[in-house]
Amino acid sequence: MRISSDRSPFARRSYHLLRCTVLALAGWLVTATDATAKPVADPGSSLSITEVAPGVHRLRIGQPEEFVPSDFRVAPIQTEKLAALPEPTKPHPFNLETVSYRQTSRGLLIHVKMDETEDWYGGGLLLSHLRQTGRRQIMKVASDPPGRDGSGHAPTPFFLNTAGHGFLVDTAREVELAFGGHQRKGQGMLSGNPELAISEAALYDDGNEVSQELSIMVPRASGVDLFLFSGPTMRHVAQRHVLFSGGGFDVPEWSLGVWYRSFTRADANRVRELADYLEADRIPVSVYGLEPGWQSKAYSSSFIWDPERFPDPQATVDDLRSRGYHVNLWQQAFTHPSSPLYPKLLDKSGDHLVWNGLVPDFALPEARKIFADHMRGLVAQGITGFKLDECDGSDNKSRAWSWPDHAQFPSGADGEQMHGVYGLLYMKTLQEALTEPTFGQVRHAGLFSSPLPYALYSDLYDHKSFLRGVGSAGMSGLIWTPEVRHGTSADDLVQRMAAMVLAPQFLINAWYCTMPPWHQWDKPLNQAGIPLPDDERIALTDRVRAVAELRVKFVPALKDAFANYARTGIAPFRAPVLDHPEVKELRNVDDAWMVGENLYFAPIPGGTTEREIILPPGSWVDYHTGEAIAGGSVVTRSLVLEEPPIFVRAGADI
Amino acid sequence: MRISSDRSPFARRSYHLLRCTVLALAGWLVTATDATAKPVADPGSSLSITEVAPGVHRLRIGQPEEFVPSDFRVAPIQTEKLAALPEPTKPHPFNLETVSYRQTSRGLLIHVKMDETEDWYGGGLLLSHLRQTGRRQIMKVASDPPGRDGSGHAPTPFFLNTAGHGFLVDTAREVELAFGGHQRKGQGMLSGNPELAISEAALYDDGNEVSQELSIMVPRASGVDLFLFSGPTMRHVAQRHVLFSGGGFDVPEWSLGVWYRSFTRADANRVRELADYLEADRIPVSVYGLEPGWQSKAYSSSFIWDPERFPDPQATVDDLRSRGYHVNLWQQAFTHPSSPLYPKLLDKSGDHLVWNGLVPDFALPEARKIFADHMRGLVAQGITGFKLDECDGSDNKSRAWSWPDHAQFPSGADGEQMHGVYGLLYMKTLQEALTEPTFGQVRHAGLFSSPLPYALYSDLYDHKSFLRGVGSAGMSGLIWTPEVRHGTSADDLVQRMAAMVLAPQFLINAWYCTMPPWHQWDKPLNQAGIPLPDDERIALTDRVRAVAELRVKFVPALKDAFANYARTGIAPFRAPVLDHPEVKELRNVDDAWMVGENLYFAPIPGGTTEREIILPPGSWVDYHTGEAIAGGSVVTRSLVLEEPPIFVRAGADI
Repeated sequence: MRISSDRSPFARRSYHLLRCTVLALAGWLVTATDATAKPVADPGSSLSITEVAPGVHRLRIGQPEEFVPSDFRVAPIQTEKLAALPEPTKPHPFNLETVSYRQTSRGLLIHVKMDETEDWYGGGLLLSHLRQTGRRQIMKVASDPPGRDGSGHAPTPFFLNTAGHGFLVDTAREVELAFGGHQRKGQGMLSGNPELAISEAALYDDGNEVSQELSIMVPRASGVDLFLFSGPTMRHVAQRHVLFSGGGFDVPEWSLGVWYRSFTRADANRVRELADYLEADRIPVSVYGLEPGWQSKAYSSSFIWDPERFPDPQATVDDLRSRGYHVNLWQQAFTHPSSPLYPKLLDKSGDHLVWNGLVPDFALPEARKIFADHMRGLVAQGITGFKLDECDGSDNKSRAWSWPDHAQFPSGADGEQMHGVYGLLYMKTLQEALTEPTFGQVRHAGLFSSPLPYALYSDLYDHKSFLRGVGSAGMSGLIWTPEVRHGTSADDLVQRMAAMVLAPQFLINAWYCTMPPWHQWDKPLNQAGIPLPDDERIALTDRVRAVAELRVKFVPALKDAFANYARTGIAPFRAPVLDHPEVKELRNVDDAWMVGENLYFAPIPGGTTEREIILPPGSWVDYHTGEAIAGGSVVTRSLVLEEPPIFVRAGADI
Repeated sequence: MRISSDRSPFARRSYHLLRCTVLALAGWLVTATDATAKPVADPGSSLSITEVAPGVHRLRIGQPEEFVPSDFRVAPIQTEKLAALPEPTKPHPFNLETVSYRQTSRGLLIHVKMDETEDWYGGGLLLSHLRQTGRRQIMKVASDPPGRDGSGHAPTPFFLNTAGHGFLVDTAREVELAFGGHQRKGQGMLSGNPELAISEAALYDDGNEVSQELSIMVPRASGVDLFLFSGPTMRHVAQRHVLFSGGGFDVPEWSLGVWYRSFTRADANRVRELADYLEADRIPVSVYGLEPGWQSKAYSSSFIWDPERFPDPQATVDDLRSRGYHVNLWQQAFTHPSSPLYPKLLDKSGDHLVWNGLVPDFALPEARKIFADHMRGLVAQGITGFKLDECDGSDNKSRAWSWPDHAQFPSGADGEQMHGVYGLLYMKTLQEALTEPTFGQVRHAGLFSSPLPYALYSDLYDHKSFLRGVGSAGMSGLIWTPEVRHGTSADDLVQRMAAMVLAPQFLINAWYCTMPPWHQWDKPLNQAGIPLPDDERIALTDRVRAVAELRVKFVPALKDAFANYARTGIAPFRAPVLDHPEVKELRNVDDAWMVGENLYFAPIPGGTTEREIILPPGSWVDYHTGEAIAGGSVVTRSLVLEEPPIFVRAGADI
């Protein structure tokens, strides 16, 4: 076993502490009492710690795999910005004396002692929970997360705690972590349940105290790099993670307005009619999105216009642009046999098909170039953005439409690894084609995705889950949008739209609706082409317009939040605990979020008519009433459909 | 690579066919065109086929692991009974010319060409679907299956198809299978969707045609035994699987009557009062079950009576026995520090704790003996059966209460493998203590569990799912009971009870109810000790008694079905497709089941008030009306709460 402590140029100031730690670590290696933690037999194995950027250490255990997310970073480490942050109080988050690891038949197993008084967060987009303490999480890419197991559209093995520490596991595999969720023999006891439980929740959820151990299982690996982030505060950890990943991104102002994605089966005439509706209804739309039917084939995708539905695609694009809309095209990577890309990608794709389509191996620069070259033709027609669908996975679906984890790719990755980075690689590919600033949508993102201007979305539609995604994604350097498709009533439609007023995107995704949802909120009736009675339709249109106009008012503030993201790495949308881990009451707030520095948004979830809101520290003003509210106050807001609860920091210029 | 064809004593009659197949196989090995299928580099690897019992072949690929389910069989192969079955039309189900395999970083990957016109079933207890065709399934033990991914209380890697073929994968690992759910490049195309989908179901479920390939991924293994079962019919395949696994089981008549499991916090006085209620209400109970609170500690379990709640346990047991009840005790294997078993099991348990308790390594005969010796003391007190809780897993729970897959056990198994056989081993342990015939409950079972007299159960409570479990479990040699706990209304309580009239057990599990659910169907009110008004309570009690008495009438027929299971291996409860795969209309019937040879039961799921019923071939009589109905008829039945739809084979003596 070898212990190294490479000194990077900026390591000087923490050199002493680092040296002390390495000495302590060396001591641990000799005196380790954990009988199950043995050094790896392979003499090439090692444990070393290196400062790789200000406040960022690399803890290398064993020999990392060849194919890891950091291989595909899209922007360099923002070293200068990292150096400008306040100095951490500790050089890195782990007490290395408590780190142990061993090689198992499943992969590399790492144990670290935690301070169980701290709470853990992160893990990417979470739709079912926010706080990770006590949980076991598996970073498995799957379009239908079954619950709180960590799988989902954008699992991201970056975690951070309320003490101002964090770490990232540089693996594309389905790494499993437990934050005090497992208990080893001989490592202390939990306090135990005081009385006999009479509910499943008491047995299985509430009754589980937290052990002191963090465990990390990197499957099928015999080594891994952990990147360790030091605060000083929790917010600095999130910021360091983004800056280390290449920074955040800014977006063009038009992309913060109202999006309308139209009926997938619409042809050029229908697209023109729908654009006429939007104008007649005076809905201030700024982006018009075409869904799969723009193509000659879907699913899988041909990436060429359908000659019957769109005999003159340039005319369609020009018409939309002349109305002031930017045009966004849906696509998925799976390449249909009829696509001109098919023969070029045949030997640059995985060994499995998806919907008969090739799965391009975007880890190969040549595959990215072939794909981007084709997309450049669409960009030349005036397309300014894309929606990248189904680049996640399907393991929890009743039918496994995506490639299996045991697939093989020419770049050397297996299917599991490719799932772990496919969103990153797919966005990277499209960015090679796009020439001007954009903001798109994507169904998978993860480590090192923070510089890429895409928002995550989902077919899932539970409103509370959708709201939860905004704040959780932000903590891990991701952006998520709680899009609207239809309503269960006119009020439900308005309530869902209102919850997007301060969301990353205001996105009406009417891909399965023949007409705008405010012409008919009911999905089956909309699909059947039956609009609401005129009076109801006009009234609903007025209400939707009011909400859309409220959104538009906030575009400058939203633009500021994104500009700040690009400049500093501070997530534009984030759960309030990130800014105030010291406020225990905020630690489980998963349905309200900070927007930039001066806005706090607490929409009332669909299906409910009032909610409690805990104001973060500071002085606040209710946007709608002008009422001043002190930070720390708990206020109740009843549903006013077109006026979702918005709080402005006192004195801020909004 | 070595090809062997060991001849077992009973292999003579199919020797010629076998020889031809081996020659064909040898030919395939030379001419294989699948570029990805390469012989394993390890010179010790091999592929061999051996007839191990009449109609059962072992296909050995590579070098199987040390710790596999067949190591723990509880009864020998029922060779004579297998020999008495009709001769298969094919020696074994796979066309070996189409079998290919390769070693991957994930484990052993096997591909077999399927006939895509056949439908696949099996996989153990399935609560969300029945037919496996087109699906990808992972045999992961988990108490909260997220959907249709194959995980659950009792995933069992045995599968069978409508052509009369089946196979078992002899692994305790989370084997993944895809029945035409994946599509490899160069292996043919699917027909594809004719038009643009406008629903998620069309995109992800309905729109997925089936490829011709079965794939089997045995994780972390470099070899495996597949046991292949030949019909001639689908029903014979299920039968052969059970007989190969050691046969089915018979149960004592008392265990087929009405079960009552009482409030977990009940003390001796309360148990006596509850028994008085049962007598006063004239509910014909034959088994009384005590839940965790009989013990001094739970969770985890001390396995000794609580001295405060039960100062004289023998008196409690004697009182219950004197009323004619058999007594069943709840337990879980996790051994509390205060248990007398704790010091004895300390070094015979896994390296992780569950709820502070040891996880006994029941793969060790000494651990089984220590545990069984203690249980014998309870049996000597008059206990005649046990309920074995939480021996499944928790990977889909929000908190992972169970041991992790990377745990280690002294027997050499890791946590994943131990999950795969824990129910089997736990039942095996208890059977070493029990001296007379019994019928218990267990929360995990799997391969080789068929001889063990236990019914599976769950905390999940969706009624349609509960009904689905009966027929699906039966196809894989398992027994499942759709127990009743409480109702959403008085009618719902009666409807759920009625659905147990022809279920494997008629089990009222009132563990969280202070009083019988017919005194108060509403869970919170029951827990608060508030009974229904007298008139409602008396009326509901009369209805519940009527349903219980109907159950009791059928005990002789149910006893016959179990006796037949023990004698022949024919599942006493099974989905109708098993008997009639030729009837396409029955292939998706997942909410009705055959009981023995002469009863067909089609309860109306809770929340619905009528249903269609497709009668299997034969001549039938409606039990309630006496109406004669021809097989193949489709009849509609409206809800008559106390009279669930029962059909008797014409001429049968019921």
